[in-house]
Amino acid sequence: MKRYELVAVTLRQRLESGLYQPGDRLPSIRDPCAEFAVSVSTVQTAYAELEAAGLVAARPKSGYFALARARPGTLPAPSRPAQRPLEVSQWDQVLSLVNQPPEHGCLLLGSGSPDTTGDTLKPLRRSLSRLYRLAGAEYDNYDSLVGSPLLRLQLARLAGASGTVLHEDDIVITSGCQEALSIAIRTLTSPGDVVAVDSPSFYGSMQTLKAQGLKALELPTDPQTGISLEALELALEQWPIKAIQVTPTHNNPLGYTMPDARKRALVALARRFDVAIIEDDVYGDLAYTAPRPRTIKSWDEDGRVLLCSGFSKTLMPSMRLGWIAPGRYRDQVLHMKYVSTGTTAIVPQLAVAEFIESGQYERHLRHVVRSYQRNLNLVLGWIHALFPADTAVSCPQGGFVLWLELTGLDCVRLNDRLVQQGVQVAPGVLFSASGKYRDCLRINFTRADAEVYAGLQRMADEIATMRRELEEQVSG
Amino acid sequence: MKRYELVAVTLRQRLESGLYQPGDRLPSIRDPCAEFAVSVSTVQTAYAELEAAGLVAARPKSGYFALARARPGTLPAPSRPAQRPLEVSQWDQVLSLVNQPPEHGCLLLGSGSPDTTGDTLKPLRRSLSRLYRLAGAEYDNYDSLVGSPLLRLQLARLAGASGTVLHEDDIVITSGCQEALSIAIRTLTSPGDVVAVDSPSFYGSMQTLKAQGLKALELPTDPQTGISLEALELALEQWPIKAIQVTPTHNNPLGYTMPDARKRALVALARRFDVAIIEDDVYGDLAYTAPRPRTIKSWDEDGRVLLCSGFSKTLMPSMRLGWIAPGRYRDQVLHMKYVSTGTTAIVPQLAVAEFIESGQYERHLRHVVRSYQRNLNLVLGWIHALFPADTAVSCPQGGFVLWLELTGLDCVRLNDRLVQQGVQVAPGVLFSASGKYRDCLRINFTRADAEVYAGLQRMADEIATMRRELEEQVSG
Repeated sequence: MKRYELVAVTLRQRLESGLYQPGDRLPSIRDPCAEFAVSVSTVQTAYAELEAAGLVAARPKSGYFALARARPGTLPAPSRPAQRPLEVSQWDQVLSLVNQPPEHGCLLLGSGSPDTTGDTLKPLRRSLSRLYRLAGAEYDNYDSLVGSPLLRLQLARLAGASGTVLHEDDIVITSGCQEALSIAIRTLTSPGDVVAVDSPSFYGSMQTLKAQGLKALELPTDPQTGISLEALELALEQWPIKAIQVTPTHNNPLGYTMPDARKRALVALARRFDVAIIEDDVYGDLAYTAPRPRTIKSWDEDGRVLLCSGFSKTLMPSMRLGWIAPGRYRDQVLHMKYVSTGTTAIVPQLAVAEFIESGQYERHLRHVVRSYQRNLNLVLGWIHALFPADTAVSCPQGGFVLWLELTGLDCVRLNDRLVQQGVQVAPGVLFSASGKYRDCLRINFTRADAEVYAGLQRMADEIATMRRELEEQVSG
Repeated sequence: MKRYELVAVTLRQRLESGLYQPGDRLPSIRDPCAEFAVSVSTVQTAYAELEAAGLVAARPKSGYFALARARPGTLPAPSRPAQRPLEVSQWDQVLSLVNQPPEHGCLLLGSGSPDTTGDTLKPLRRSLSRLYRLAGAEYDNYDSLVGSPLLRLQLARLAGASGTVLHEDDIVITSGCQEALSIAIRTLTSPGDVVAVDSPSFYGSMQTLKAQGLKALELPTDPQTGISLEALELALEQWPIKAIQVTPTHNNPLGYTMPDARKRALVALARRFDVAIIEDDVYGDLAYTAPRPRTIKSWDEDGRVLLCSGFSKTLMPSMRLGWIAPGRYRDQVLHMKYVSTGTTAIVPQLAVAEFIESGQYERHLRHVVRSYQRNLNLVLGWIHALFPADTAVSCPQGGFVLWLELTGLDCVRLNDRLVQQGVQVAPGVLFSASGKYRDCLRINFTRADAEVYAGLQRMADEIATMRRELEEQVSG
């Protein structure tokens, strides 16, 4: 740990312990210099960290002040879905979310797109631009089916950060993480099979179950520790489950990261019942603290975990670049990849390989993660200030999405009414096979500016209006 | 028809009728001037056309001479596949063809990649390069599921050239034509179903049948008129066929175009038996004569034809850009597209839309088609000169692939031995569900230069060696 980090961590603990109340002035730069025996610039760097995290604010000529911090939120209750295999519905809701081109003027809080406005993406844009000008068979023709060896090498190196030992030949490049997930599901199942999923769960995977004629077994999921292993064990005894599909790190939509012990236990359980695990790690690199969490795959000893990821949440969704480490299913996955899209576009692969190799990927991650963390603090504060007191809010460990529970409120209708006012959210029903979570919604916090504040205010107003209407109906 | 075209067509007819034998000198420029009452420059343009088509050659100060033309080839016999539904095999062969990165030094005659070396692609590269530098939600985020309205508009306009009436909303953009085909097949079928296919048939579609657990019913196919409608009718009466999958225009691998009357009759047959048609038109725009042939879709009155196409054969495979006009299956196709890859990369869509709108696409087509036509003449001549007299050769009407039948020769083994010598071809077994066409192979003629000539010479030598070995075995 660097010196400034030690100072920042200590001061952060004091802030969180309540030693400084909102509005309190922090000690002048000189005090920590003496206390920690460090230079002025070290303390300045530490204060800048705290400022970036939204914990303190600098006022010209007055020093640093503690900010009003988000109250520790009420977490959503652990989910209790119907514990039997169900067909997946909700396509109409998903379609209306994913088939809208980003309209100018509409605040897309329901979108799953990351922040792409930073300068740290510029080297990637430059590479893409340069490589697309080049002519030659290696840029123009079909790529090899497995994908570029340059990118696979970089991915294998990156995997070390999540404790995952991968060789470049263990990786197959795909057209986005969605193709990786879709290939994994189609590799492991036949129509009529049952797949166990966390709940709420990513709608892209769930719709793949629908397209393949599968049934989803939604399992109780804790908003801090993930899928219930106890419920999973019972389900594995009771149903012929072909695969377990989870997003254990910076979960979409709940934001939690399964603790290591539970990840390890999940692998052991899968081994005991001889079931494959599909691990969606597409938000995995967006950790608020270093090192990033380990993957489930990192405890996989017999190749039963199919690790799926991509660059749509860390770089740009429009590139459609993802990958899969399919373990023992490599041959079948290669066949599925071939029939799905043939091969993957080459230039984005080469550009991202350059971006990683030059260190720009990690630089970009540091930049966006700091920004997401600051935005999270701000947005949590705004929600607590604006929303009803009984609003439950998730507590993300990484990524850029937040899950809200508004007991008794119809969030499909809320969204319909908000869209009229230029604000879009993702209704909770999207994240359930059977339309559960109707009183929940997902928003992103890729931005936290005046427009987002105004959008949240409009949401809060609409929530108040709908609750009033509801009360009038009940009393009338 | 322009004046020079009239002159060129007339002279071409005279050449083809045998009025001028190889080596004969053509009339001097003045004669046609008088005969057709046109200017010297008009006749010069006409002669240049004939030269580009490989029919005549200019000798300095001596005028134009008729070239040795390819003998009218022996066509492969109409195919006679086993007329019952079969599971698809041959994945190992396909894998070894598609999983090789283009090795430097290996002559990839088996490849399905087009000629991308011409200057006419430069405006496209410039657009790609320019657009990838731009930042903004419309370039960075997920596209809408159906794809860019700009590209769909251009595709709807282009469709007019093939007599196909399409509105932009009738089109869904895909990651290459392979995704379009894969989506179409998965939309129409469930595991165990039977799909009727032309034979030989594109291995990408066939492997999709395998992945989906379907059976292929390979139908007798004529090397000039395509799938046998008589056999198809019998099959439709006998088997529960869910879809008919054909490549009726500039067929891969046979090169034929089904005559209009047969295309129309195919639609009528499909309607009578209430079966859908998957039409692969990916080579459709590469016609040697204008206007390009009509699609089957152009006779589709009730939306049962799913027209699949893309830009991998006309522009650059590496972009992975395709599309589907799914007719009455639009809703299911949209769902399949979503679960397959989410959305399609945006920038290639915008760049190709610009390329079409500016007229550069048609300009590029004219350039490559002229080159393919010239190459075809040259390569046919070389094959007739070098290969055994009993070699049967297809007679392509468009595109850039040629089908060879070498009676009794094991072309899988031939390819294995050729690869050792730096030449790769596509063995015929790839194009059959059941490994038929072992004595056939496909080569491309995107180039016709000294290296290709040397490659064909090596092939001819190897064929002679293998035939000799075979005779020795028989006699020994």
